[in-house]
Amino acid sequence: MKTQYYTASSINGYLADEENSLDWLFQFGDIGDIEGVQDDYPQFIDQVGALAMGSTTYEWVIEHENLLEEPAKWPYEVPAWVFSSRELPVIDGADIHFVQGDVAPVHADMVRAADGKNVWLVGGGDLVGQFHDQGLLDELILTVAPVMLASGAPLLPRRITTPPLKLANVQKYGDVFAVLTYEV
Amino acid sequence: MKTQYYTASSINGYLADEENSLDWLFQFGDIGDIEGVQDDYPQFIDQVGALAMGSTTYEWVIEHENLLEEPAKWPYEVPAWVFSSRELPVIDGADIHFVQGDVAPVHADMVRAADGKNVWLVGGGDLVGQFHDQGLLDELILTVAPVMLASGAPLLPRRITTPPLKLANVQKYGDVFAVLTYEV
Repeated sequence: MKTQYYTASSINGYLADEENSLDWLFQFGDIGDIEGVQDDYPQFIDQVGALAMGSTTYEWVIEHENLLEEPAKWPYEVPAWVFSSRELPVIDGADIHFVQGDVAPVHADMVRAADGKNVWLVGGGDLVGQFHDQGLLDELILTVAPVMLASGAPLLPRRITTPPLKLANVQKYGDVFAVLTYEV
Repeated sequence: MKTQYYTASSINGYLADEENSLDWLFQFGDIGDIEGVQDDYPQFIDQVGALAMGSTTYEWVIEHENLLEEPAKWPYEVPAWVFSSRELPVIDGADIHFVQGDVAPVHADMVRAADGKNVWLVGGGDLVGQFHDQGLLDELILTVAPVMLASGAPLLPRRITTPPLKLANVQKYGDVFAVLTYEV
């Protein structure tokens, strides 16, 4: 069982641009559409037993998938924990726990729910930072898109240098994505 | 002949931390010290015929190498162009041209001096951005150190998404460095 931050960013570490858009990422289509490339997401999500995200990510998913009108399009089968100090819209039929405050007890709940499978931290960066602050992040799996952004939502706004991460794997998907896997 | 931005950054795209320090990078020692790894710098620099840097980078090299007292330690054999609107200290015996303003005519001078070899943009990020703004950047060779920084000097503070870069190569150096090569 690992707690994993699996996400995509620009080369220079932005999750989304200053308008909270992912257009720069979606221009590449599905990773599986690249010639000779197999999407690693099905294999990844198969080992996930619980996930967490912040309110900005949650609201982005709602808007992107038009979930208030089409709640069945909620894209996750495993239980989700959404961290927010604000009241957020509820998606009918989705297994979502709304929580706030210290991430440690929530992480314990997630680990119990995951029942031996992994815990996925979807984002954003500061929420993942809160898990890391408490030693609860085990792995970063970063899909690097071949773009630069001038500003936006930061990947992981923390200083993590001592000890450094450990590069476990690098992979090249066509002439588009580099996937870097780090152990924390 | 290519104009190359060859540099190292944190995973999240900082060239230096907020105190302009590279301690987080130097903790790993020389890349060639990693077991089973051969440093690619000699091969890279062998093909370089001219280089450019901004004033912050220049001042960093001066301080780091103690060049005002030991000018013979200037680390480059090829002619260097230093961009600055300020008066900067001169290194005895080093082949340095101090310039300012539009990068395009300077680039033309560099290409002439390089005589078929490559032009290396050492940094910082904004100077490289000025070359890119004028279509003068051909390649990014990025050594990604396994650390996060909370803030600092940005790798390339531009939006470059349309068209995106092309990932030409990825390489893994031990459990430390990923080297990503992009064509612009």
